Amino acid sequence: MTTEEQAADTAESTEEYADLGATTADAMAIAETSMDRVREIVPHETLADRIRGKSVHATGDPEFQHLIRFTGTTDEDGLTDEDGLTDEDDAPVRAGARAVLDERPIVTDITMVQAGITGRGHDCPVRKAIGNGAELAERTGMTRTAASVLELDREGVYEDAIAVVGNAPTAALALADCIADGTRPAVVVATPVGFVKAAESRARLREVAAEHGVPTITNVGRRGGSGLAAGLTNELVHVASDVRDGSIDAEWATEFP
Amino acid sequence: MTTEEQAADTAESTEEYADLGATTADAMAIAETSMDRVREIVPHETLADRIRGKSVHATGDPEFQHLIRFTGTTDEDGLTDEDGLTDEDDAPVRAGARAVLDERPIVTDITMVQAGITGRGHDCPVRKAIGNGAELAERTGMTRTAASVLELDREGVYEDAIAVVGNAPTAALALADCIADGTRPAVVVATPVGFVKAAESRARLREVAAEHGVPTITNVGRRGGSGLAAGLTNELVHVASDVRDGSIDAEWATEFP
Repeated sequence: MTTEEQAADTAESTEEYADLGATTADAMAIAETSMDRVREIVPHETLADRIRGKSVHATGDPEFQHLIRFTGTTDEDGLTDEDGLTDEDDAPVRAGARAVLDERPIVTDITMVQAGITGRGHDCPVRKAIGNGAELAERTGMTRTAASVLELDREGVYEDAIAVVGNAPTAALALADCIADGTRPAVVVATPVGFVKAAESRARLREVAAEHGVPTITNVGRRGGSGLAAGLTNELVHVASDVRDGSIDAEWATEFP
Repeated sequence: MTTEEQAADTAESTEEYADLGATTADAMAIAETSMDRVREIVPHETLADRIRGKSVHATGDPEFQHLIRFTGTTDEDGLTDEDGLTDEDDAPVRAGARAVLDERPIVTDITMVQAGITGRGHDCPVRKAIGNGAELAERTGMTRTAASVLELDREGVYEDAIAVVGNAPTAALALADCIADGTRPAVVVATPVGFVKAAESRARLREVAAEHGVPTITNVGRRGGSGLAAGLTNELVHVASDVRDGSIDAEWATEFP
């Protein structure tokens, strides 16, 4: 098959793979093969499986699926997905997709995570925390990322937002403090990486968020990072796109608890 | 100790940890603890160990050090580092640090990797490939990232540059083609991630680069990604900073083969 034939052959699936950033014949072929491999590793039986699969896709590690955690999943509205599944792990994915459809802001900790958020399939403003709260950081000695989260929270930015932490454990801890103090993000995606406070910051987020009914998608262990956080957030966008185009029949997407 | 005492206590080490992005007392304490943990896992005996350690730092995985590979290490100039070590794995680290000191461009595949490159400790222009070569991608069906690498190469951008590929296997393959066709980057850092062509693209890069004497820093396996690529590149900047401030006594930094 020539490249042009491939282009013609794959033209129909342009839309399907465009959400992976693929717009050319080669890119779509790669995206298709890649998605097939991931689905072999994590069969998509639930919405949560899509997040688990995306973690495998983003890390290149089949075992990463077992490190993903979902909390704040009190399924109070009792709504189910297209297959009638009620896997409570799906709740944060539904909350995230609904926030995307509602065009809520996606707020990342650092520039790198912001750069990894897809520009397609959503109309959410995408902003980063870092760069805010410099005076607070200087005055208190706290990290710039922690100060930036507290500053944006003071401005109300995290309320009903898609709050994403890919890099800084102290940003995750600051976000947990904001939630304890009354802030209610629509969903939290947190995968800070490293040997100091990373796992602990995610554990604290899960605990505080579960206590206050805030849905979270996080991982356990020391691994994680910006690419993972961006990938998981992009999967929320993809789920929202599937709701929008009808390939997921989701009452929950248009109803609010 | 109060936060202000901590700030005073750690003020002296500001410069040391500023290259990890730490500018506040909390951030410096975290960076210091984090670096200590990494050095326990990968003792810094050679320059290559610094790259191996950075891979552990970036991934949060102690075992990642064993997945790092160095090639194109023909140590023709016979120069050694401060300890007189001649570990040939050091050669690409020396080449990278020298390119940083020479203010050569750092050219990344995608925006996310560009966003992860530190702004401190160097005067290298940092640019990304993606966004170039759109017409070539559309005409041929190749991926946008591959086309962008070929387009920048046509403009001579990769010659003596620090060429970084964090995400796209096809960008790594395109870069290998450029090297086969005569382009000579100062060093290649390539850690594309995934199940399709990622490991193969790095293997091809190592093979072509070794054949043509281009130093490379890559990993084996399916893992990798933008955060890793940015981290390893930033470590080249840190080595260069240590040469500049005299903490590494390096003849090779000012002499060219």
